[in-house]
Amino acid sequence: MNGAESLVKTLLAGGVDICFTNPGTSEMHFVAALDAHADMRCVLGLQENVVTGAADGYTRMTDKPAATLLHLGPGLSNGLANIHNAKKSRTGMVNVVGDHATYHRKYNAPLTSDIEGIAHPVSHWVRTSPTADDLSTDAAEAITRAGTHPGQITTLILPADSAWTETDKPIITAATAPAPAGPDADRVCEIARVLKSGEPVVLIIGGRTLREAPLGLAGAIVAGTPNTTLKAEAANARVERGAGRVAIDRIPYPVDIAVDQLKGFKHAVLIEARDPVAFFAYPGKPSRFLPEGCEVHELAAPEDNGLLALEMLADELGVRNAKPPVSDFLLPPVANGALDPDSIVSVVANAIPENAIIIDEAITTGRQFFPVTSTANPHTWLQINGGAIGIGFPLAVGAAIAAPDRPLIALQADGSGMFTLQGLWTQAREGLNITTIVFHNRAYKILLGEMRNVGVENPGPSALDMLELDRPALDWVALANGMGVEAGRAADGETLAREIQRGLACEGPYLIEAVM
Amino acid sequence: MNGAESLVKTLLAGGVDICFTNPGTSEMHFVAALDAHADMRCVLGLQENVVTGAADGYTRMTDKPAATLLHLGPGLSNGLANIHNAKKSRTGMVNVVGDHATYHRKYNAPLTSDIEGIAHPVSHWVRTSPTADDLSTDAAEAITRAGTHPGQITTLILPADSAWTETDKPIITAATAPAPAGPDADRVCEIARVLKSGEPVVLIIGGRTLREAPLGLAGAIVAGTPNTTLKAEAANARVERGAGRVAIDRIPYPVDIAVDQLKGFKHAVLIEARDPVAFFAYPGKPSRFLPEGCEVHELAAPEDNGLLALEMLADELGVRNAKPPVSDFLLPPVANGALDPDSIVSVVANAIPENAIIIDEAITTGRQFFPVTSTANPHTWLQINGGAIGIGFPLAVGAAIAAPDRPLIALQADGSGMFTLQGLWTQAREGLNITTIVFHNRAYKILLGEMRNVGVENPGPSALDMLELDRPALDWVALANGMGVEAGRAADGETLAREIQRGLACEGPYLIEAVM
Repeated sequence: MNGAESLVKTLLAGGVDICFTNPGTSEMHFVAALDAHADMRCVLGLQENVVTGAADGYTRMTDKPAATLLHLGPGLSNGLANIHNAKKSRTGMVNVVGDHATYHRKYNAPLTSDIEGIAHPVSHWVRTSPTADDLSTDAAEAITRAGTHPGQITTLILPADSAWTETDKPIITAATAPAPAGPDADRVCEIARVLKSGEPVVLIIGGRTLREAPLGLAGAIVAGTPNTTLKAEAANARVERGAGRVAIDRIPYPVDIAVDQLKGFKHAVLIEARDPVAFFAYPGKPSRFLPEGCEVHELAAPEDNGLLALEMLADELGVRNAKPPVSDFLLPPVANGALDPDSIVSVVANAIPENAIIIDEAITTGRQFFPVTSTANPHTWLQINGGAIGIGFPLAVGAAIAAPDRPLIALQADGSGMFTLQGLWTQAREGLNITTIVFHNRAYKILLGEMRNVGVENPGPSALDMLELDRPALDWVALANGMGVEAGRAADGETLAREIQRGLACEGPYLIEAVM
Repeated sequence: MNGAESLVKTLLAGGVDICFTNPGTSEMHFVAALDAHADMRCVLGLQENVVTGAADGYTRMTDKPAATLLHLGPGLSNGLANIHNAKKSRTGMVNVVGDHATYHRKYNAPLTSDIEGIAHPVSHWVRTSPTADDLSTDAAEAITRAGTHPGQITTLILPADSAWTETDKPIITAATAPAPAGPDADRVCEIARVLKSGEPVVLIIGGRTLREAPLGLAGAIVAGTPNTTLKAEAANARVERGAGRVAIDRIPYPVDIAVDQLKGFKHAVLIEARDPVAFFAYPGKPSRFLPEGCEVHELAAPEDNGLLALEMLADELGVRNAKPPVSDFLLPPVANGALDPDSIVSVVANAIPENAIIIDEAITTGRQFFPVTSTANPHTWLQINGGAIGIGFPLAVGAAIAAPDRPLIALQADGSGMFTLQGLWTQAREGLNITTIVFHNRAYKILLGEMRNVGVENPGPSALDMLELDRPALDWVALANGMGVEAGRAADGETLAREIQRGLACEGPYLIEAVM
């Protein structure tokens, strides 16, 4: 057995049985080893940000780290932005990055680079395995770290000679990750007193607490302590929502609205969530959203066990059986006219099938999508998280592979979509049931607004040139077809509704260009 | 004047008058400042690796650093692979990377990352300007460093508050970069003695010595010392070549061929070139190409003045007026049948117009392109250099902007092209006269060969799945059309020849899918 085989066997022994890949020469032994193990599913992406974004989507749906295979420093670089997003989403990931043979590195061949240096800013754990003998031990540690609640980014660098050299070291089964800590009882009592104080409290939850069971507990707590308001973090890896589930609003993106919504609170209780801050700084506006004097109580850090914290808090408050405020099933009237954010969301809310997965990289168009869809059929919502645009197509790939039997609708801003449109090809190759709606507003619309936010009222032609994408206009139907994805176009609500049904009904991916 | 304006004025004062951009919110003040200066040309790319690759292409043609504008850590990450290529090409570049306001960084907002950490592995110089007052000084230093022979990668990080704060500091004009050092006279004498020794010598040149004047000198040296063989490095940023110019072969990519070509040499003289090494390591094959016992004499390091070294050496040898062996004008017969590497190069060699620019990311298909085209019309050859595939479309953008009146043919492998196909949109937007031939072999063909090179004779279905791109086949005509680029298809030599003429004749970009 060579090092590459040892690595593949270790991944499988540790429960990592999918590898999103874009390999190169230095990874050929690893590819050969993958080939020999039919229980390892390999999914090719034509650019590495597709690979890493897909791994994120897969893990958000399975809570099980996926592996990626990347080609030296440049391959890692190409996938770095979606690793950044995964890190901010607290997604676990095992990146395997090929490197030159250890003895070849000193010759500074064209592809030589400081891979560890590139990996560190986006990784919780980085290691180069210097010999074949080290690979199983190192990979097992990477898997354990990746699986540590809520998830860590690990990057294992695989020199070509570590991959091709023989080893007789035994395969190590990755240790189970340590259980996340719960709060201590005194702390729970203290927080319970805050909630019962009668003072206005915002309970901000995030991470794994946006699943059905913890959301139910959070809902019960809010039902039992009427001075408490429930909020989710601004961006979230995965939210279980829709009719019959506890409705939760996100902290808004625009600073003024967020500050206004939070202005009356005397206390903020955080569970797997962070003190809410502005996405960007703006001259004269605050970085933190909570008002001066609002006391912040962290009951569970993002690394802690938020579910347990909610259970203990609900018990302490004696509200575990309080009836949480769940969403009714309520659909907005479908707007049939020209497409704008309001008409689009009316169509989308009506179209969401039961148990659907929604991928949200809708950006500007999607500002109102979240509240309006809260009363649609029950569904799972995966959102860009980390701000590195270009996650939508890849995230859909990973989620659809993780949950092949669930319908999936992807809400995709056009400017963001262009960053990783190569993901469409993987959607076609894998025959994934993904219906993507591209919001074709022909601009970095968000930036037109942000220009004003930073105080530039009348951008000139050169500035507009950097924000408008209509010269030439992109033809998303042609782009999708070029990568083997069927596509259609809609310019009004009725057509969009019909196109979504067509997409959901067809085998494999379908793309709709929503002309705005 | 705010910091952003100070930065733009400093760039212009230092001769940097083009900015390839993909901006975001944190760069809005810089965009506004660019807008106010019509003498700064701004070129938008829809993904950052287009932006950085275009900057490289521009600078290879002008020897003048371009600026890029990138959006925080993820924007830099997306452009990192082509910065890596630029670094390996010894191209100067001034990257301006926006960051959060300094006071906002500690809040760890979604887009917060270690930008300096990401920049360091690909940069010669990295600095964050902590205040508006620092920007002109820092930018001037970045420009000087970028312009230091042969070129350096500089990354200037621009916090949003440094951009928007007022400053009354004067605009600093970047100092002229220090002249590169020439060799000392004794060293030249020593090398001249080696060349006159009668022992077989390989003179390996690279960098700026592949321009017409130094190549002429190298040719004269070879003509005057018959035991000397001239070679270029394996990959080169820019070579001036074709009929009437000194023909130069590159060190080959395949290890066995390279070792065989270099086996008899007792001396290697390096001028702006490095000791030749294998692109990748392979089990049982050497990393260095030069034989044991071959003495390596570095006359000019890549940072030194190779032109001066050649002048001094030619003078010392007394061969300055020797007639260098220049290429005849000689075109191969056009092969009219199905397309393969041989028939394609026969068509391309005939089609190269006088004074054309050739962009070479042809990879596997292009192995024989370089020698066959050496007797075509005189032209400039820009090659992928650094091994990070996905440079072709962007490099063509930058080169065509730098030399709008020169015909440009881009030779593009399909797998590599998919990494940055977004570059086509910028080609259309800027109306660039680029004729791209995509070699549609529907595979990472190079990797099928590399599988064998590492000893895997019969890759299985899972391995092949990671190397073959034909499920589904890409439709390059649709992809080009989708980004506003006219396109055609050719499956035989005659059609390809006609399509190239069509591309060269039409206004703006044209893409040809060459079906192999």
